[in-house]
Amino acid sequence: MNHNIPYRGIFTIPSTPFKENGEIDIPSFRRVVDFCIECGAHGLVFPVNASEFTALSDAERFQLSEVLVEQNAGRLPAIIGVAGVSQEVAVKFAEHAHDIGADGVIAMPPYIHHISGKLIFDYYQKLSDAAKIPIFIQNYGPPVGTDMSAEFLINLCREIEHVEYIKEETIPTTIKLTAVLKENDGSCKGVFGGAGGRYLIEEYRRGSSGNMPGCHVTDVVVAFWNALEVSDEKRAMYIYKEMAPLFFFEHQLSGCYKEVLYRRGVIDCPLKRNGTMPLDDISSRYLDEILKALEPLMTWRKVA
Amino acid sequence: MNHNIPYRGIFTIPSTPFKENGEIDIPSFRRVVDFCIECGAHGLVFPVNASEFTALSDAERFQLSEVLVEQNAGRLPAIIGVAGVSQEVAVKFAEHAHDIGADGVIAMPPYIHHISGKLIFDYYQKLSDAAKIPIFIQNYGPPVGTDMSAEFLINLCREIEHVEYIKEETIPTTIKLTAVLKENDGSCKGVFGGAGGRYLIEEYRRGSSGNMPGCHVTDVVVAFWNALEVSDEKRAMYIYKEMAPLFFFEHQLSGCYKEVLYRRGVIDCPLKRNGTMPLDDISSRYLDEILKALEPLMTWRKVA
Amino acid sequence: MNHNIPYRGIFTIPSTPFKENGEIDIPSFRRVVDFCIECGAHGLVFPVNASEFTALSDAERFQLSEVLVEQNAGRLPAIIGVAGVSQEVAVKFAEHAHDIGADGVIAMPPYIHHISGKLIFDYYQKLSDAAKIPIFIQNYGPPVGTDMSAEFLINLCREIEHVEYIKEETIPTTIKLTAVLKENDGSCKGVFGGAGGRYLIEEYRRGSSGNMPGCHVTDVVVAFWNALEVSDEKRAMYIYKEMAPLFFFEHQLSGCYKEVLYRRGVIDCPLKRNGTMPLDDISSRYLDEILKALEPLMTWRKVA
Amino acid sequence: MNHNIPYRGIFTIPSTPFKENGEIDIPSFRRVVDFCIECGAHGLVFPVNASEFTALSDAERFQLSEVLVEQNAGRLPAIIGVAGVSQEVAVKFAEHAHDIGADGVIAMPPYIHHISGKLIFDYYQKLSDAAKIPIFIQNYGPPVGTDMSAEFLINLCREIEHVEYIKEETIPTTIKLTAVLKENDGSCKGVFGGAGGRYLIEEYRRGSSGNMPGCHVTDVVVAFWNALEVSDEKRAMYIYKEMAPLFFFEHQLSGCYKEVLYRRGVIDCPLKRNGTMPLDDISSRYLDEILKALEPLMTWRKVA
Repeated sequence: MNHNIPYRGIFTIPSTPFKENGEIDIPSFRRVVDFCIECGAHGLVFPVNASEFTALSDAERFQLSEVLVEQNAGRLPAIIGVAGVSQEVAVKFAEHAHDIGADGVIAMPPYIHHISGKLIFDYYQKLSDAAKIPIFIQNYGPPVGTDMSAEFLINLCREIEHVEYIKEETIPTTIKLTAVLKENDGSCKGVFGGAGGRYLIEEYRRGSSGNMPGCHVTDVVVAFWNALEVSDEKRAMYIYKEMAPLFFFEHQLSGCYKEVLYRRGVIDCPLKRNGTMPLDDISSRYLDEILKALEPLMTWRKVA
Repeated sequence: MNHNIPYRGIFTIPSTPFKENGEIDIPSFRRVVDFCIECGAHGLVFPVNASEFTALSDAERFQLSEVLVEQNAGRLPAIIGVAGVSQEVAVKFAEHAHDIGADGVIAMPPYIHHISGKLIFDYYQKLSDAAKIPIFIQNYGPPVGTDMSAEFLINLCREIEHVEYIKEETIPTTIKLTAVLKENDGSCKGVFGGAGGRYLIEEYRRGSSGNMPGCHVTDVVVAFWNALEVSDEKRAMYIYKEMAPLFFFEHQLSGCYKEVLYRRGVIDCPLKRNGTMPLDDISSRYLDEILKALEPLMTWRKVA
Repeated sequence: MNHNIPYRGIFTIPSTPFKENGEIDIPSFRRVVDFCIECGAHGLVFPVNASEFTALSDAERFQLSEVLVEQNAGRLPAIIGVAGVSQEVAVKFAEHAHDIGADGVIAMPPYIHHISGKLIFDYYQKLSDAAKIPIFIQNYGPPVGTDMSAEFLINLCREIEHVEYIKEETIPTTIKLTAVLKENDGSCKGVFGGAGGRYLIEEYRRGSSGNMPGCHVTDVVVAFWNALEVSDEKRAMYIYKEMAPLFFFEHQLSGCYKEVLYRRGVIDCPLKRNGTMPLDDISSRYLDEILKALEPLMTWRKVA
Repeated sequence: MNHNIPYRGIFTIPSTPFKENGEIDIPSFRRVVDFCIECGAHGLVFPVNASEFTALSDAERFQLSEVLVEQNAGRLPAIIGVAGVSQEVAVKFAEHAHDIGADGVIAMPPYIHHISGKLIFDYYQKLSDAAKIPIFIQNYGPPVGTDMSAEFLINLCREIEHVEYIKEETIPTTIKLTAVLKENDGSCKGVFGGAGGRYLIEEYRRGSSGNMPGCHVTDVVVAFWNALEVSDEKRAMYIYKEMAPLFFFEHQLSGCYKEVLYRRGVIDCPLKRNGTMPLDDISSRYLDEILKALEPLMTWRKVA
């Protein structure tokens, strides 16, 4: 595909829908992909944390990645998550991403037993050899992630052929983002934020290239980003404040992404693996109100 | 003193101001206490996490607690933090709180080496015997806190004479709050939230008795609470959204409480022990803008 | 196969050998299986923590489990590790274990994102439905494991058809083992210890059914166990003390299992995934001395 | 006092005895000090982890340190633990240690809220200014300790006047010890091990200056050390193996130090703060057997 390079904007993260019995729901997943694109996202990133990649089998990761690329059909850059429990396993995902025609890959270091220094370097080197397409390093904190310094990250970009982007999510991400950009000698083509966009205003001021949020209100996040791109910070701040109740709701009930997708009519079942969130009547009603209040900012509507 | 019982409202947490050399700054602390009261707080809670109690010597805790009670001069209920590294140490704080005329005490279980079950029960029993005034149990997550179940918390209220209130801060605090209230047989006189008020709308709907936030924008949090008390949820939601940028800013740079107090002219030096936050030019300017935008909601002004 | 039931003795854990390039080394693995059997083990458990199961791909887990069962050829009870990152993934491993003719399965709850209470119950229920052969619950501490109470464990044994055994590794395992056996109403057919046998003397006195150690000195651990089985505690204590230097060495350089297997001539390469241990000259020489001193207790010799 | 410099040998850690009611027991503490000296220790280190320093009030730390120095009466080098929850608090302990005539101080960085880099440097600089006597850096892992690199540790020794020794307890301590000694340019006068002596043989080979164990079998550890000092490694290994059952017992029931001191007749009550270990009949009998077996190596006997 011929996508704008360097990558920029809202690279949204499709959720993984499951059926009532816990199996992956491919038709719903195809709708999620379409939803993301119709919401105006600038890229797709899958499977990563917000898609519950750590609850999937390897076979499911392969299959869903294939479906994503197929359903996307080149409409957006498709960045495949290839983090592995070891270098050897990550390489298999990276080779597969290459083979199915992904536009890039993203990976954090091994996420059960952690490694450091030279071993992390080798990990990304092997991913580069296997993927042969642009690599995003995901800098994410423990216990699942591995916190890497700005200097170390830029060194990976400089020394390893396809390592070109960074997703920066360690705290304080704003200060960290500036540290990475200061260290950058041109080897890094862009730094993206995460956290659903909670820190987007400051990230943008600091020179971020975009953000990778969960996908449930991609349309709203895109509006937020687009306001910043046309220097309308007042509107950006307005959208930011409108999103705040949802952000805080998510602090309490992490993974309500899918509940929102379900209520918006994108997926058939809000089930998460390893336990759905404990949504009681009060929180359920409150979530309805939050979504109702956000509606004016939502551009995507379910077609009956 | 004769305070309304049961306790209700915004029980704010005075910060501990330090001088440039790291020593406690008593005159600034007196101003913080006055600031809290002038902001309309309904109670004072000190020293707890938001007052850096884990960076103070025992002697400083004793001294500052005395100054707080003295400076308060009975204007508000004064709840003294008496958590200890062991039961034996906590009891010393509880006896002291009693002796200086505190209106209540608050404690989480030992916060370096943790205990469980029967040992926690004994801890609160001993605190009750020593304090002889109302006790708030602080339910706070690891690594500093100890997560206790709703059933366990209410049992402490039922079985131990002075254990009467709960500060609930474990995730999801909203669901947890309802669980505690459901379990309550009348032994618990009220459950307070924390987290600066981030979850206050839902907490209120669920029947919380108040919130214990850091004190830097006590006036705004009080306005937020008062709107809820007069059933003006629209205004409450408005204030909530206005506060959101500050809440998110604090996620990144925890402990900017004192930077805000410093900028508002309450304290002479924003220094924290164990390291001030890494506020660079961009975040410093952004914080200025956030405070500027919040100004219309601030009722407290520095008298020149 | 017709194995003695209930299971009892040293159920050893074959390591997963890798080639220099990190790929699994099947011929070496077959030799490991033979080594374990020739050392006198009473059962085989694979793949679990001591076999680096969290660094393997799903496909490698399937393949190695098949090779294990095939190479074992019914000589010993073969217990297959089926822990999964989610219930749905674990079920796939359990079905496979059943299909290849395993004699039992072992699993801890999901080991990246953890679950509790009812969700754990469902997890083991689904495993039971899928495996239809005896299940060992692995009770192992965080961050990889999930600490379950004696009462909860026995309830799983009582309520779920195939849940029959427990591997108890939470601290203090000795006290925990007794708690489990006290709670046992006959639903649990045996409790095994772990930790390489470090606590075997006390475990045995308390009524354990066996131990599941890493396999590198299976012959010595078997001698240790057999001494206890013939009530020769003096000899058991002698062997225990002789093993102690190796136990302590392993505290420092975890995963030296494979270095020992390599030095004993069982496998071709001591490589671990996610980094080999930093064995320098001094520790290398010291390990040689330790193994030399243990030689009189080793019954297995490499055939030239 | 005029003690051998540089410090070398077994610097044992007196326990803090409590009465049944949890109060500190000064007469028992004086006996512990005498016991340590009569066991042949080469130095005293107090209060640190093995003396439950994190369960003591500041006042108790001051008082017990004074009693230690007084009871020691210059017989051995007395190293006072001055770690603080913040630099400002640690400085108070360091000034006090200086004032009471301590021979050295030992500290890890703040142990509740942790600091890094430049802030750690400042912490030790301030301790040096306050103590004006030799400082041991305690390198100890999370959650209580802070893991520092060999390079960083030696830099502290080089740049800060009184920082002269290191206690190395991070895993793998053996490899770490060699790394520190390799980095050493003469600024560090000695590196001590910990962990009760579990790794002493390798530590000694690598050039350690001594070890800081809990005090309950100081006589045995001293015999162990002395064997190494006269190059009788065979005897050292013999003692090591004899101690092994006690080492493993302690893994399970941490803090059985005081139970041993109690059984040896040194202290009146084995109580720990924050909970005594759950010693049941089986473990109690087993501990008796372990101590009985170690008796031939114990030189200290209670005088009737």
